[in-house]
Amino acid sequence: MLTAKFDQLVKQLRILPGVGQKSAQRMALHLLTKKRPQGMALAQALDEAMRDIVECQRCHSFSDEAVCPLCQDPRRDDTLLCVVETAADVMAIEQTAGYRGRYFVLGGHLSPIDGISADDLNIEQLVWRVKQEPVEELILATGTTVEGQTTAHFISEAVSRHVNKVTRLAQGVPMGGELEYLDSMTLGQAMQNRSFL
Amino acid sequence: MLTAKFDQLVKQLRILPGVGQKSAQRMALHLLTKKRPQGMALAQALDEAMRDIVECQRCHSFSDEAVCPLCQDPRRDDTLLCVVETAADVMAIEQTAGYRGRYFVLGGHLSPIDGISADDLNIEQLVWRVKQEPVEELILATGTTVEGQTTAHFISEAVSRHVNKVTRLAQGVPMGGELEYLDSMTLGQAMQNRSFL
Repeated sequence: MLTAKFDQLVKQLRILPGVGQKSAQRMALHLLTKKRPQGMALAQALDEAMRDIVECQRCHSFSDEAVCPLCQDPRRDDTLLCVVETAADVMAIEQTAGYRGRYFVLGGHLSPIDGISADDLNIEQLVWRVKQEPVEELILATGTTVEGQTTAHFISEAVSRHVNKVTRLAQGVPMGGELEYLDSMTLGQAMQNRSFL
Repeated sequence: MLTAKFDQLVKQLRILPGVGQKSAQRMALHLLTKKRPQGMALAQALDEAMRDIVECQRCHSFSDEAVCPLCQDPRRDDTLLCVVETAADVMAIEQTAGYRGRYFVLGGHLSPIDGISADDLNIEQLVWRVKQEPVEELILATGTTVEGQTTAHFISEAVSRHVNKVTRLAQGVPMGGELEYLDSMTLGQAMQNRSFL
């Protein structure tokens, strides 16, 4: 619209999720008008992240080094292993600050429709790990979608001979949730899994 | 949260307008998981734009070269000059595809509260330009805020001896606007400026 380099920047900004033509223009103008040094810092952070962030060899989450800080941390409990679908899930659980065990990222969930089978996920590595290491409890924190649940069942069968305790996240009414607006599947589950006060 | 470089990327993404912690995390994970080459292309476009885009010497909009494509285009009408506050306004008017004259970017509007006086805007250069060049109509397309209107009046006085025709954008009911929901200032203006059908 204005110049070739401006158009190029707007086009590239649109690859960000949730950013359309108008937002991209606004971002580009904002950076050019008021925040050039910050724009350059963003360019550098982006370039470094894309080049240098790799998959952690142990948990398959993201890492700057071969093994990520969470896997290296000696204060975490090796007997607890939490299995999640993506690195985003690791972040979500870390933000609760209530879990002190290790993680294992599958890299997705089983989905025959999308052609994702057990070989496309890190399931073999997971089985190998629970065989080699003293994991006492495996927490299956895959999604509560049909695919996520199927993946959890598949894993629980695959590891059954090597781990005594296989658990999954509690299902029920979310904090601050109004019963009235909750879907009936969740409410039914919550009723079934009710606990003593 | 995950690694130092990831945190750095999230922090830098937050300088974009309208991007908070959650969106920045989502953007970073999206790029790392699925779009690394595009992420690098974005980094490069960003770096080039921040370094190479300069202010056009003639119209003070953004440009890759000393003089921008709009000022260089020989097919545009030199006798029409449209004065706007920012380069974003140039883009907005260009998108209407209905204007074939030249532009002049002030770089803001007069605002005593924010300490922005006539010396902080490109008003002197504008007066110089209308003195030197055969401008027959000066279109004042500053904002319809109090500051924008004040700026327009200030300019119209400053150039009055050099330009015959000084105009401003029409004010009235926007396209697709429901009268019921329109503010009374605009509706009052539209009534006053009514035209023959």
